[in-house]
Amino acid sequence: MKLYFTEFHDEGTGIVFKIKKELFSAKSPYQEIKIFDTYTFGRLLVLDGLVMLTERDEFVYHEMLVHPAFYFKGKAEKVGVIGGGDGGTIREILKYPDVKETYLVEIDRMVVDASKKYLPFTASSLDDRRVKIFFEDGIRFLKERGEDFDLLFVDSSDPVGPAKALYSMEFYKSIKKNLKEDGIVVFQSESPWYHLDIIREQIEGLSKLFSSVKLYLASIPTYPGGFWSFTIATSRELVGERDYIPEGLRYYNKSIRETLFWLPEFVKNVTG
Amino acid sequence: MKLYFTEFHDEGTGIVFKIKKELFSAKSPYQEIKIFDTYTFGRLLVLDGLVMLTERDEFVYHEMLVHPAFYFKGKAEKVGVIGGGDGGTIREILKYPDVKETYLVEIDRMVVDASKKYLPFTASSLDDRRVKIFFEDGIRFLKERGEDFDLLFVDSSDPVGPAKALYSMEFYKSIKKNLKEDGIVVFQSESPWYHLDIIREQIEGLSKLFSSVKLYLASIPTYPGGFWSFTIATSRELVGERDYIPEGLRYYNKSIRETLFWLPEFVKNVTG
Repeated sequence: MKLYFTEFHDEGTGIVFKIKKELFSAKSPYQEIKIFDTYTFGRLLVLDGLVMLTERDEFVYHEMLVHPAFYFKGKAEKVGVIGGGDGGTIREILKYPDVKETYLVEIDRMVVDASKKYLPFTASSLDDRRVKIFFEDGIRFLKERGEDFDLLFVDSSDPVGPAKALYSMEFYKSIKKNLKEDGIVVFQSESPWYHLDIIREQIEGLSKLFSSVKLYLASIPTYPGGFWSFTIATSRELVGERDYIPEGLRYYNKSIRETLFWLPEFVKNVTG
Repeated sequence: MKLYFTEFHDEGTGIVFKIKKELFSAKSPYQEIKIFDTYTFGRLLVLDGLVMLTERDEFVYHEMLVHPAFYFKGKAEKVGVIGGGDGGTIREILKYPDVKETYLVEIDRMVVDASKKYLPFTASSLDDRRVKIFFEDGIRFLKERGEDFDLLFVDSSDPVGPAKALYSMEFYKSIKKNLKEDGIVVFQSESPWYHLDIIREQIEGLSKLFSSVKLYLASIPTYPGGFWSFTIATSRELVGERDYIPEGLRYYNKSIRETLFWLPEFVKNVTG
């Protein structure tokens, strides 16, 4: 029997994976969670029918979400992650020896548990003693708290359903409240090929609160359009403060950080 | 009825398009040619089951194949294209007023004829008086000729079947023979996610003949991995010689040309 999983990015195009085996399938209180073993991209995590990560290319997403912010912040002791229950973002954060504690705020405990069992390449980092996991709604968490994070990473789902609130002014204000004055926040911010309107709105919203808001891009073959954007925002200038790059990275390097903010014309046009 | 076209990039992953209508289907002496109208990527040209271009994203491929070479060559009067019967590469070349003549060497007349009828957004450029079309095998053409091109673009199919010879030392020598001493050649050179071995071999081969050989990348959502490479080779230094950028481009711009040669670590590792 041949089993295929297809994600349609819009009504006309999609990506298809040939599946070796379904490893996990369950409905949590929040979403449908599936983990497959694929023929050529290793393990595949799918939430509510959307590709979250594959074993073969997750390194790009996690490296590019995390490492640029560390370049611009010479010292980062306390770091927060909203979402990211698979653990990949935490894995990259823990590569910096100055990090003393990281908070992971993941609403869905089942994502963490399934990841620990089936996605050890990302989730094994979650057992590190510097990691504190809060099984809570990230939006409410930041609204109610007053933390002093050096860096915050919003490793969220796509802005449909409840995750829509992750793209609201109210959420951006909560983020600012939980960041140190010279802190930096980075959002995964969707595909320039499919979600330019979301990118534009997010930049406009963040620009009301932060003086430096910039977009950067990376090649992630299993995400819509194969190209993904990240938005970095802070109240100070984005200047490199740290030479150190962890060993063993497979995407991020010096040539990327030196050229980080290039944008194709069709993207530049919407970022103001 | 719902009609889908799927291209598998390897045995495990592919891209799927929902099709509105098949506009053209024929077998030429060289290949099977199909043109579809899709729901979200406009018209789609498929040769032997592989996506050649879509109306929505072809601008990236054609702009990025052509414009960097013009940046590095301040004057380009005579320009050649091997393959590229759809006309997109010629369209970009003709945006430079110093170009006096362009040769298009396309083996398959039926690709040109079908493109003129169904893909006017690329093919209408082929009626320009500066364009000379040769319906010949590009490999033989360059082997038998002794032209003096300022710029050559190898706008070829994937290296399977007869197109394999486009990645041979013999072909690279023919190219050099048909280039001016300070001429530049650019190859489309496949996907870093699927064809790193081909990229490595091509760079190694070209480096035996040219002193400057460099790889650069662009986001093309309908090509395997959504990320494509181009290899530029010349016997002189690659230094910007031309400030002019044609108006109306949608991908290439100053920020791209200034940061052109960044590479992710996993690609840099194979390019020596």
